[in-house]
Amino acid sequence: MKVKAGVLEKANVFGIKEVEIKDPGPNEVLIKTKAVGICGSDVHYYVEGRIGPYIVNEPLILGHETAGEVAKVGKNVTHLKEGDRVALEPGVPCGCTDFVKRGLYNLCPSIEFFATPPIHGTFAEYFVHDANFAFKLPDNVSFEEGAMCEPLSVGIHANRQGSVGLGSRVLITGAGPIGLVNVLCARAAGAGVIAVVETHKNRLSMAKECGATHSIETFDRKEQLEQVHAITDGTGFDVVIECSGAGPAAQMAVEALKPGGTLVFVGLFSQLEVPMDLNAITQKELTFKGVFRYRNTYPTAIDLISSKQIDVKPLITKRFPWEQVKDAMDCAHKEASSQIKVMTEW
Amino acid sequence: MKVKAGVLEKANVFGIKEVEIKDPGPNEVLIKTKAVGICGSDVHYYVEGRIGPYIVNEPLILGHETAGEVAKVGKNVTHLKEGDRVALEPGVPCGCTDFVKRGLYNLCPSIEFFATPPIHGTFAEYFVHDANFAFKLPDNVSFEEGAMCEPLSVGIHANRQGSVGLGSRVLITGAGPIGLVNVLCARAAGAGVIAVVETHKNRLSMAKECGATHSIETFDRKEQLEQVHAITDGTGFDVVIECSGAGPAAQMAVEALKPGGTLVFVGLFSQLEVPMDLNAITQKELTFKGVFRYRNTYPTAIDLISSKQIDVKPLITKRFPWEQVKDAMDCAHKEASSQIKVMTEW
Amino acid sequence: MKVKAGVLEKANVFGIKEVEIKDPGPNEVLIKTKAVGICGSDVHYYVEGRIGPYIVNEPLILGHETAGEVAKVGKNVTHLKEGDRVALEPGVPCGCTDFVKRGLYNLCPSIEFFATPPIHGTFAEYFVHDANFAFKLPDNVSFEEGAMCEPLSVGIHANRQGSVGLGSRVLITGAGPIGLVNVLCARAAGAGVIAVVETHKNRLSMAKECGATHSIETFDRKEQLEQVHAITDGTGFDVVIECSGAGPAAQMAVEALKPGGTLVFVGLFSQLEVPMDLNAITQKELTFKGVFRYRNTYPTAIDLISSKQIDVKPLITKRFPWEQVKDAMDCAHKEASSQIKVMTEW
Amino acid sequence: MKVKAGVLEKANVFGIKEVEIKDPGPNEVLIKTKAVGICGSDVHYYVEGRIGPYIVNEPLILGHETAGEVAKVGKNVTHLKEGDRVALEPGVPCGCTDFVKRGLYNLCPSIEFFATPPIHGTFAEYFVHDANFAFKLPDNVSFEEGAMCEPLSVGIHANRQGSVGLGSRVLITGAGPIGLVNVLCARAAGAGVIAVVETHKNRLSMAKECGATHSIETFDRKEQLEQVHAITDGTGFDVVIECSGAGPAAQMAVEALKPGGTLVFVGLFSQLEVPMDLNAITQKELTFKGVFRYRNTYPTAIDLISSKQIDVKPLITKRFPWEQVKDAMDCAHKEASSQIKVMTEW
Repeated sequence: MKVKAGVLEKANVFGIKEVEIKDPGPNEVLIKTKAVGICGSDVHYYVEGRIGPYIVNEPLILGHETAGEVAKVGKNVTHLKEGDRVALEPGVPCGCTDFVKRGLYNLCPSIEFFATPPIHGTFAEYFVHDANFAFKLPDNVSFEEGAMCEPLSVGIHANRQGSVGLGSRVLITGAGPIGLVNVLCARAAGAGVIAVVETHKNRLSMAKECGATHSIETFDRKEQLEQVHAITDGTGFDVVIECSGAGPAAQMAVEALKPGGTLVFVGLFSQLEVPMDLNAITQKELTFKGVFRYRNTYPTAIDLISSKQIDVKPLITKRFPWEQVKDAMDCAHKEASSQIKVMTEW
Repeated sequence: MKVKAGVLEKANVFGIKEVEIKDPGPNEVLIKTKAVGICGSDVHYYVEGRIGPYIVNEPLILGHETAGEVAKVGKNVTHLKEGDRVALEPGVPCGCTDFVKRGLYNLCPSIEFFATPPIHGTFAEYFVHDANFAFKLPDNVSFEEGAMCEPLSVGIHANRQGSVGLGSRVLITGAGPIGLVNVLCARAAGAGVIAVVETHKNRLSMAKECGATHSIETFDRKEQLEQVHAITDGTGFDVVIECSGAGPAAQMAVEALKPGGTLVFVGLFSQLEVPMDLNAITQKELTFKGVFRYRNTYPTAIDLISSKQIDVKPLITKRFPWEQVKDAMDCAHKEASSQIKVMTEW
Repeated sequence: MKVKAGVLEKANVFGIKEVEIKDPGPNEVLIKTKAVGICGSDVHYYVEGRIGPYIVNEPLILGHETAGEVAKVGKNVTHLKEGDRVALEPGVPCGCTDFVKRGLYNLCPSIEFFATPPIHGTFAEYFVHDANFAFKLPDNVSFEEGAMCEPLSVGIHANRQGSVGLGSRVLITGAGPIGLVNVLCARAAGAGVIAVVETHKNRLSMAKECGATHSIETFDRKEQLEQVHAITDGTGFDVVIECSGAGPAAQMAVEALKPGGTLVFVGLFSQLEVPMDLNAITQKELTFKGVFRYRNTYPTAIDLISSKQIDVKPLITKRFPWEQVKDAMDCAHKEASSQIKVMTEW
Repeated sequence: MKVKAGVLEKANVFGIKEVEIKDPGPNEVLIKTKAVGICGSDVHYYVEGRIGPYIVNEPLILGHETAGEVAKVGKNVTHLKEGDRVALEPGVPCGCTDFVKRGLYNLCPSIEFFATPPIHGTFAEYFVHDANFAFKLPDNVSFEEGAMCEPLSVGIHANRQGSVGLGSRVLITGAGPIGLVNVLCARAAGAGVIAVVETHKNRLSMAKECGATHSIETFDRKEQLEQVHAITDGTGFDVVIECSGAGPAAQMAVEALKPGGTLVFVGLFSQLEVPMDLNAITQKELTFKGVFRYRNTYPTAIDLISSKQIDVKPLITKRFPWEQVKDAMDCAHKEASSQIKVMTEW
């Protein structure tokens, strides 16, 4: 079957091409694409042609934040039928490996993830996916909300890794798209205090709208810690969720935490190595936890949106019809500091 | 110091008396009472003169859901000063025992708890308490909200014992005062589905106001399970919080749970023994967890009320000035099915 | 391919037949059988023709405690090669379902388990299995030790469900084969006290050999609890692992536990319902946990045997060549109280 | 009461003096000292007069690894009586603070710890201690084994922080006294593989005696990781327990861990900041955990020694009568690389 798709040929060469897609296998579904959000990683591949070790050597369909309609189901698929509206979890492990058996399927080296070379993404009229990673949307969840389940999943997983719950006092460093979904999830999980470190005014106002209770609007370490002290009555935060990828934020986090607190790493650092005070881990018995994508978050994301516990719509700041996917990519790239989420509609 | 207090002489003999209270010790505070809620246990002592093994053999001041103002601080107390507004956690362990060291202080047999014979409660103009169990209220939390931290604590602890979190699907059996605080806490903790089993119309409407998403309004087992099936797409609930103390509710809960699910016991059963299908625990790998009062919940309760994540005010359905504490007790007793929380103001 | 196999036609009709087996698929391996232990469930099918809802309606190859040699590998299999010696985990889920993704693959209703109708078992010269559920044995682990990984897995999973660790005080009710593997695992996990409730002398002596530190040799409730008191200095046990399937043992366990303790259910009860004091769960904040088979235990079992932390050989009390599999079954049935594990060698 | 004690006047000035001790309070016990081990921190104070922010400004009795006999009990003490043999946990929190209530009493800033200025230690004929931190020794546990409960506690806590259990594959960096107690505890907890990074021959042979299954005897990163690969079949370790305080060991640990693995920090680093690859935490979803002293370990340590699960005696490499406490200190200092534990007998 031939479909039109948004294809990256190599760095900075992106456009709509016709590509051939295979038929769904017995455990797969064919999806008619309806909404695809643009992620920072799509833009990064577009501009650089690579992300670290992942290099675009052959034409690659981008896009991995996706919702669509089931167009065809493989013969073993029983939980979905033609016409069902679904959100698509982008990463699929190869089988029942050691990591999968232990419930850590996102860590399995075998995983195949949309728009991570050489696996194609979902900027396409149709695509094929494992049916176990397609989740039915209730009537009151729109396609673009379905696509937002992907970034929201990062917030869900990070908050779970940090054991954020009733009354937790949480600091989130950075209020870009990932910082903001973390604010939404911390609020939904019952955090009592949610402070955000951020200096961009529009991101700060968006953070407040998402549920942040306090903001720290400086990068001066001493001032930051004074404000941490004031916000937490001198006790420090239970959890810091690091979303900025800035070394100084990680260093500050260690000081901002209460003894016994948890530092969750979500952002990727451009520095290969960050100098860290390891004795603070010992003396305060801190816990550090990493977040690599997410696992077991889609049903949760859908329930949270459907039950109105979380509203992701304000994060969608611009929409493009799919024929303008290149314009959408350029917008996401050039207006990175003012746009939160650019959505394409297929 | 002599104060007026609401004293139970013996079953059905309750009224205001003048009693002598001691001075605060070095680690204690003297509290001027401001608000005390009436709990089902206060009413039970009033009517029966006992609760199980706890017997009122001597005059006992009732009341344990309390907020007040610090009137005097012991010489070692540094975190509070005269005039501070505080909520009082009612149970204090005797020292750093084995249970306390393991963070299970509520399970320590040494614990002394307000209005549990022979320990006096807080229906009194003033009382003395361990300063470590007095928690400062922010300006935006009223005294009666401070008193509500006590029943709310049961909901916090039960939801924690059930690991209720983002997207959990929760069933709560019974929507009396304790069922309702569990609904509030499940909602605040991000549960995706919150169903309530209840037949009283006014409790059902209060449950909806507190955040319940579904109701099961029958005691017929077969019909209950059909509705469980419908609400959860056939998968069952992640968590059941049993607040009714009814044997059939516990039996139904086992069937309503998803494999791997958790049944939290909060309600006390009048039956000494309830026939249970123990093989279901094995075959579905269920977890049962008990809730005995609560631990480490007061700071959480205060943060949740202060940040507006939880609104306890609708639960307060009647208020009495303290001079009418006997009328308040009679009201709580006789209007048990229509009143949620009767509050006395001191 | 035609192979000889131990087939149950219907209750009490068991013998060696020639059966046809399929070729291994791309993710499967063909195994030449080397050792198969006989489990109580094999005997139960033999004698009754069913276990609860599982009914032998068509001829069924029994046997599920298995080790063998890889005879052929499917084309996708990379971690095994012809000639490898392996232990076989008997239960395989159908794919990456909700339970599998959450690391609870043993609870997936899709699971196919050896010798559970209509799935054939391993009393056969050769059989085919999913390669992800075949675990390579080190040179110092024999085939019969490989077969013992199956019952040992139940002990590993039960001790994990009970969080048995350094210094835990554990009570195990019943010292049949499953009670004994629980003793071995509690000992290997560092339990400080391991008491066994059992009256059979030979089982008691085997329990001591496996690492039990104390025994309670009576079924009189009052005497049992006096001994619990004496063994634990009056504090009660941290964990009880119920392996007897006897209602009175479950009831006693609730009394034998320390507040905050955990009761792990492994044994299946013949009673449909057991009267339980549910208020004890609340007042002592007990945890109940179920054990349904096991998950993620085979690599652990192999490491424990290989590193000599656990010695399973004493549990193998009788061996038969495979041609005498019917005699082996009769022995396991008739000498149930004196044999621990009857092993067949293929 | 006047007693003879080993007092540090200032750096390098240490000897026996007569000092005055107070009477035990109502919740305290007077202990007649019987055995005190010498810790690296005692030596550090001796040689440097300080450890980081803790400075010896006034004469300080050293010693904190202690067992003794109860000489007198305070009036509220019920669980001990004169003549009882006890091990003494050295750190006592001031009361029921926030950290204590949450079971994290070792993190409470209020804690008073033997031989940490200005709190005196136990190199004295008699001393007074909180009775809740004195643990009765069974007859089969000697005084010097009782004193060894202190270093053993660090191993128990570190293995708990790392969730070391049945079949865990553990790497321990450094085989000094703390590395060795970690080997003992990992072995007792059922670890399947216990590898040690160490180059001193005598420490390596002690590690083997304690239960290490493998050793890595090089500081060359590339060679270390090749051996990690070989020992773990290419998968990496589940847990690394860092006991060396060497920056390169922490860096190597990150590479030696399996995705999802845990790095436990026990050793203190002389470098203020160690350059760390924080992206590895994210991409492998690693967990870092700190160990500050220990909590809730004494009953466990005593049970493990009493039940012969752990034998601490080989670690005691030299004994001195208390009159020679200065010689003992000099021995511990000068023979640091050959002595494991120097014990003084009182």
